[in-house]
Amino acid sequence: MTRPILVHLLPALVEPQALRDGVAVVIDVLRATTTIVHALAHGAAAVIPCGEIDEARRLAAESPPGTALLAGERSGLPIPGFDLGNSPAEFSPKSVQGRRIVMTTTNGTRALIAAKPARRVLVGALSNLGAVVERLGEESGPVHLICAGTDGRITLEDALCAGGIARWLHLSGEDMDAGDDSTQLAVNLYETCGRDYDRACDLLRASRGGRNLIDCGLDSDIADCADQDRFDIVPELHLGAWEIRSGQTTNDE
Amino acid sequence: MTRPILVHLLPALVEPQALRDGVAVVIDVLRATTTIVHALAHGAAAVIPCGEIDEARRLAAESPPGTALLAGERSGLPIPGFDLGNSPAEFSPKSVQGRRIVMTTTNGTRALIAAKPARRVLVGALSNLGAVVERLGEESGPVHLICAGTDGRITLEDALCAGGIARWLHLSGEDMDAGDDSTQLAVNLYETCGRDYDRACDLLRASRGGRNLIDCGLDSDIADCADQDRFDIVPELHLGAWEIRSGQTTNDE
Repeated sequence: MTRPILVHLLPALVEPQALRDGVAVVIDVLRATTTIVHALAHGAAAVIPCGEIDEARRLAAESPPGTALLAGERSGLPIPGFDLGNSPAEFSPKSVQGRRIVMTTTNGTRALIAAKPARRVLVGALSNLGAVVERLGEESGPVHLICAGTDGRITLEDALCAGGIARWLHLSGEDMDAGDDSTQLAVNLYETCGRDYDRACDLLRASRGGRNLIDCGLDSDIADCADQDRFDIVPELHLGAWEIRSGQTTNDE
Repeated sequence: MTRPILVHLLPALVEPQALRDGVAVVIDVLRATTTIVHALAHGAAAVIPCGEIDEARRLAAESPPGTALLAGERSGLPIPGFDLGNSPAEFSPKSVQGRRIVMTTTNGTRALIAAKPARRVLVGALSNLGAVVERLGEESGPVHLICAGTDGRITLEDALCAGGIARWLHLSGEDMDAGDDSTQLAVNLYETCGRDYDRACDLLRASRGGRNLIDCGLDSDIADCADQDRFDIVPELHLGAWEIRSGQTTNDE
């Protein structure tokens, strides 16, 4: 099977036309997509991504009482008055089971919007890397791995995850000849780390986002975000409803 | 000595304001900056970069007879009526000694324009990597390594060269803590290859630009462009005159 497998290192580098008929995977390892995977794996009914704090409050207020939770961060820190921040560990079964999570993150939301022209929009992180690869193997058409980056800057952890997905697809028999140089750059990064958890942690700690989390005292989030294949769900953005739901039966650690 | 050493994987990712007080190195390994290094190392008086074919013809026509040569390419191939293409090997001492080379390349010129706000604009390639590192060690202020890319796409060979410059600066005692994730990504790529000529060749051949050259029958250019430290000159763009001159006495192989 030959099809393009393309890594886009930033949402701004995606040509919207190119996504048509393709499957997009949105990646924001530190921390939005990791958190979304945790939330849905732990039984949340859906995650509703939105860019602005006011919009999140409005959406949560419109939900029946007790059904929605407000989550998100600004500059890495929880938002005053919100139920949850953006640390994966906060999204435990006890916290999120059956709830709709209205989540506001700037970079992750921007990447989801960039992915909209695709036929399907999936959510990827290191925590569900293998499941994403398996799911992509069942889908036809070009694969676009869209790294969220941070404030328009390329991030190491998103490139690592995109490179891992591309590499495992390639190892599963996909032809990557049509892949471009960004894809090779990302695959090369992943190959220096592979499934080695300690190396992934080191790499995430050395990244700009990782250093920011350490400065915020959120060091333990890095350990969660570096953990490959902890869950086997593949969240999918349902474009009409604009909500992310678990692609499979929820599955706990 | 601590200062930012930043890799910009595309001209579009450069924030013009950020370049002020800094030194920029423009990198277009396949093939514009490699060719510029060859031309100046082999005694060309200057290289005048321009974006358009008509502009190049006009500039050459305005020069005293016999002093200028027209050079450049479109889609990898020589331009009809021009004296030279864009293969480094064409720029031999016999061809270029004492001449002013009016050169039109789209990506290289775009990157030079993006670099303009910097205090100094140098020209880098694998062929003068060590000389660039040495020169940067003598300059103060932030270092911006600007990859030309191809038609707005990130290229492996430019990332490799930028990563090599950043890595060698770091090994020479420069602190890279202020470097961002793009820089780490590029350094990581270089570390998989280092000074191994065969690996650099393989990497260039696998890149989109390398495959294009092979398709054009210009395979031997890759061998020239992958050759690290062949020359020890550092060409510099003189912004007022808009011409690139050799930073040191010309130096043959």
